[in-house]
Amino acid sequence: MANVTVNKTAHPFHKGQFEALLNRRFFYAPAFEIYGGVAGLYDYGPPGSSLQANIISEWRKHFIIEEHMLEIDSTVMTPAPVFETSGHVARFADWMVKDSKTGDVLRADHLVKNVFEARLAGDKEARGIAAQPQKDDDKKKKKKGVKAAAVQLSDEKVKEYGVILAQLDNYSGSELGELCRTHDIRNPDTDNEVTEPQQFNLMFTSSIGPTGQHPGYLRPETAQGHFLNFSRLLEFNNGRVPFASAQIGRSFRNEISPRAGLLRVREFTMAEIEHFVDPEDKRHERFGEVRDVVLDLLDRNVQAGGSTAVTKISVGEAVDKGIIANETLGYFVARIYQFLVKIGVNPARLRFRQHMQNEMAHYATDCWDAEIENSYGWTECVGCADRAAYDLTVHSNKTGHPLIVRQALKEPIVSERLVAEFNKKVLGKTFGKDAGVLQKLFADFDEAQLSKIQGELAQGTATVQLPEGKEVQLTPEVVTIERKTFKQSIREYTPNVIEPSFGLGRILYVLLEHNFWAREQDVERGVLSLPPLVAPTKVLIVPLSAKEEFDPLIQEVSSKLRRAGVFSRVDDSNTSIGKRYARNDELGTPFGVTLDFASVQNRTMTLRERDTTGQLIGSIDDVIGVVTELVNGSIDWPEACKRLQVYDGVQAVE
Amino acid sequence: MANVTVNKTAHPFHKGQFEALLNRRFFYAPAFEIYGGVAGLYDYGPPGSSLQANIISEWRKHFIIEEHMLEIDSTVMTPAPVFETSGHVARFADWMVKDSKTGDVLRADHLVKNVFEARLAGDKEARGIAAQPQKDDDKKKKKKGVKAAAVQLSDEKVKEYGVILAQLDNYSGSELGELCRTHDIRNPDTDNEVTEPQQFNLMFTSSIGPTGQHPGYLRPETAQGHFLNFSRLLEFNNGRVPFASAQIGRSFRNEISPRAGLLRVREFTMAEIEHFVDPEDKRHERFGEVRDVVLDLLDRNVQAGGSTAVTKISVGEAVDKGIIANETLGYFVARIYQFLVKIGVNPARLRFRQHMQNEMAHYATDCWDAEIENSYGWTECVGCADRAAYDLTVHSNKTGHPLIVRQALKEPIVSERLVAEFNKKVLGKTFGKDAGVLQKLFADFDEAQLSKIQGELAQGTATVQLPEGKEVQLTPEVVTIERKTFKQSIREYTPNVIEPSFGLGRILYVLLEHNFWAREQDVERGVLSLPPLVAPTKVLIVPLSAKEEFDPLIQEVSSKLRRAGVFSRVDDSNTSIGKRYARNDELGTPFGVTLDFASVQNRTMTLRERDTTGQLIGSIDDVIGVVTELVNGSIDWPEACKRLQVYDGVQAVE
Repeated sequence: MANVTVNKTAHPFHKGQFEALLNRRFFYAPAFEIYGGVAGLYDYGPPGSSLQANIISEWRKHFIIEEHMLEIDSTVMTPAPVFETSGHVARFADWMVKDSKTGDVLRADHLVKNVFEARLAGDKEARGIAAQPQKDDDKKKKKKGVKAAAVQLSDEKVKEYGVILAQLDNYSGSELGELCRTHDIRNPDTDNEVTEPQQFNLMFTSSIGPTGQHPGYLRPETAQGHFLNFSRLLEFNNGRVPFASAQIGRSFRNEISPRAGLLRVREFTMAEIEHFVDPEDKRHERFGEVRDVVLDLLDRNVQAGGSTAVTKISVGEAVDKGIIANETLGYFVARIYQFLVKIGVNPARLRFRQHMQNEMAHYATDCWDAEIENSYGWTECVGCADRAAYDLTVHSNKTGHPLIVRQALKEPIVSERLVAEFNKKVLGKTFGKDAGVLQKLFADFDEAQLSKIQGELAQGTATVQLPEGKEVQLTPEVVTIERKTFKQSIREYTPNVIEPSFGLGRILYVLLEHNFWAREQDVERGVLSLPPLVAPTKVLIVPLSAKEEFDPLIQEVSSKLRRAGVFSRVDDSNTSIGKRYARNDELGTPFGVTLDFASVQNRTMTLRERDTTGQLIGSIDDVIGVVTELVNGSIDWPEACKRLQVYDGVQAVE
Repeated sequence: MANVTVNKTAHPFHKGQFEALLNRRFFYAPAFEIYGGVAGLYDYGPPGSSLQANIISEWRKHFIIEEHMLEIDSTVMTPAPVFETSGHVARFADWMVKDSKTGDVLRADHLVKNVFEARLAGDKEARGIAAQPQKDDDKKKKKKGVKAAAVQLSDEKVKEYGVILAQLDNYSGSELGELCRTHDIRNPDTDNEVTEPQQFNLMFTSSIGPTGQHPGYLRPETAQGHFLNFSRLLEFNNGRVPFASAQIGRSFRNEISPRAGLLRVREFTMAEIEHFVDPEDKRHERFGEVRDVVLDLLDRNVQAGGSTAVTKISVGEAVDKGIIANETLGYFVARIYQFLVKIGVNPARLRFRQHMQNEMAHYATDCWDAEIENSYGWTECVGCADRAAYDLTVHSNKTGHPLIVRQALKEPIVSERLVAEFNKKVLGKTFGKDAGVLQKLFADFDEAQLSKIQGELAQGTATVQLPEGKEVQLTPEVVTIERKTFKQSIREYTPNVIEPSFGLGRILYVLLEHNFWAREQDVERGVLSLPPLVAPTKVLIVPLSAKEEFDPLIQEVSSKLRRAGVFSRVDDSNTSIGKRYARNDELGTPFGVTLDFASVQNRTMTLRERDTTGQLIGSIDDVIGVVTELVNGSIDWPEACKRLQVYDGVQAVE
């Protein structure tokens, strides 16, 4: 019993059952539910909050502590000029269309995708090809969404739709409008035509101060807070590059018509890293540690060819072949992979997709998304973008505050060049208000132009044309041109930025989906096999009786576990032990310890493992020792089975 | 050297030096600084972020884990109806006045306070009474603020100002306007008169969705998220009361004219607990554990008498005497005290002040603030309010969703009462549209009225007056009145809420002030004596040389400390060891370990304590063991001095 291998995919994914579990156990729920809710806003209940806190805690260890990143915490409320400079006011937008009669608003690309996918599904049905296994409750849901009429399409149409879907992220607004017209795409809820796509800016607006004089935006990403503090961060890091800053915090996007639960929301917690590197040296000193990590990659060229077939390839090879542009980008892609798998994402359902040219955010030069497959399709959960020097440059230009690195060169760079020197007195006297124009003109001349003038001056006079067209004569009395030697001991540059950006709510949701299953012998009851690392509660303490004689034991086990750093809860509710175990299977609690009458007499305790339902028995202290190691990951369940006796008592009826 | 007693108040608090340190080491800085900043918005840099994260982590342990609270995470963006119901739209406001000529906006109560305090200071100067010891940089600052003209006031005026200041929080808007007129209070920046006080709502507004159809507010407190989820939380807790929910998150208040750094900001992180209790039983089962905690209390009556003198009293006595209204309120006041002292707040500068009647938020029936003294005066850092059943009641009334507890009674309550029963058929036929009016009328009748009618019916007919005045005759055919027995086995009630609410930024700031000092022998260099529990970095690893032979040792010490759960940083910068220690004294790092050439040869390492600058030496593993215990708080420095040798080497010149 104790060492049974568990088949966690014992039956098809049952979405209705899954959603009912999350709702019943208050992982999360629509915010303001008693007021009817607002689309795209969710509250996390106790297990959701704990799961999120544990994911964040592991993220801090995996990234911030492991790599000595500089954590910051910047404000959400942002004055408008910042996002005007960053380009977000002009370009952080999605394309929306309106129902031509009801005025309902839809996101254009999602509309096209939903309609095409529904038509393809209808085609399959008409051709008699088995649809994906969907449970009844999913079908019910379908009725509310896009209808899939069983109409067969021509083979050409099927192929055309497939190609468009693979490239959809690359379409501009007018192209999306064109698609709607050509393919007669209508609002599926009303069958009405839709309007031309219009841009809708996704930032929430507000205003700061009592007189409304400062328009502001809620940040749609935490990144600008890193960039604006760049000089302070660089100084904190003793002027050295590369280094990374990191921030975990709330961001806001006023999504057009949020659906798909936690996957598209208007308020969410992000974890973002801005890794600042020398643009001329994007190697990474720890790249060797991840070189052999094998990933499923879907690059830009494959998608442009209308395919979504992934390539299995090591990060090292991908960088060597130029599929991933540089070591630093590759390093973070691999580290993202390791993090996601560690917290419980199924690696078989994880791929890295490169953005297509038109798809990238306005600030990015390259971007790889960690996409995770779930019941809604493939969802971007982490973006890993190369923002180059875009942000630091625009903010520096706008504010006049230099956002640069000054690097002392080991060997000064010695160079020679021609330099013009004016006799200011004579210049002013001779040319009056043109004097400044002349100086500016000379400053812009290149080596060849200066050399030509030098030659003419040697002959006595040089003729120069001013910008407005007038020609002036110069003599060596006014200007001399000579070759001079320059020694540069400091190199100044604007660093590039590699940005891994995590949507924690999306990760939390797919993690729940990937770890949800049911036992073959009891398909109506769900189990969440969350790894102990992130499980909301690690150990459930189950006293078999509410008798007072159990209280000191409960107290003892509870405080010993707390001292060992293991987060436990007591379930002394008035239900059968089977129901209590079932509730905790649903809450993803990996271990349960049961205190029964033998515990009171002999100080023994049983230990139950959630996935196998196997039970072991030992002294209270031995069981606490074993469960502590299980939770910390230093031993696994088969090892625990060697250390404690198998228990086949009768009280723990499942 | 190693065991010197440290005088942490070796010189007067030096505000300019303190602020320069916080700024230089990037504890925090004005947000959007390179754009000129916005008042009331601050970013935390690496040490500020770590300090905040450590305070939060300890808060989680002290409150959430210790008391099995249910943590939630609800949204910031809130649709308007929620705050309309909660009363915030109408009443969450401050009084502002405008400069009559420039239109500059000032908060009315702050204006009165600043002007009176300045006049009192001027009076003291004129009387030749020594002002508080202020350093030169503070004086510079003063010039920008409220001027203190050295004018002597009458003794009556001095007394009057004192009484008004003690009661200021109790003044209404019109009373504040009256004060400005009577005492000729003007805008100190311009000497212009100010306008009548107007209310200004402190919530930031926004709108949700692409068509702007849903007006929304950014929450000014996290509390509503708890109340709206009350039913789900109660269910999660198996229907049992008392229980508490807890939330750590961002809130926003559009302050009128934020000054005073982190003490009055427009965006801040809060930690809030909503403890739900039976209104008829506000005892607390763990009250005995805190009964003997002695606090400085400043109750409502003392303030009403124009005084701010505190009473030193145990929590038990305060509750027994009715100064603190009940055990649960008293329990949390004591737990707040314990938390603040544990993280490093000076208990001698901490008092609990009860709100005066007009001062309380619209939802509170009683409130005690933890106020902490700092260079700006006494500042509210934690509020502990009894919100009674206010919020649950208004939301339940508005939405029709019952926010109640259903308690199974051990003994059913049996009661008898008169009940009217109508013969519906006859009633309808006889009274037509008045039938419903009659039924409603009877439902509202009390026992005495029913008994009178019962008597009349026994005589044949009863006369009843309808609400609009018409009299109708009733017979026993239409209605009978009988005594019936009722058995109630469920008690339904709306719980009361005790709310401890923490402003983490304010706590962080006063913590820094309380722990800042300078050594007598080196007053220009600051030290932050943050307790190891919250210090941003626990151990600094200092290699004496940049030679490569040190690298394996640095690696070893660093990874051994990480495995022991001790957060360390390496400082291998190219400066003297004295400068590196000084930097880390400023960062509040409690311990430093130094690797020198002896370490390479003999595997020894020195350990430095920040406050005493004492140094010890031992084997690398022994030092790691000792420093781990020091950080965990299981031993103190005198104990460490017994376990390792005192070191009086020469390299660690301070």
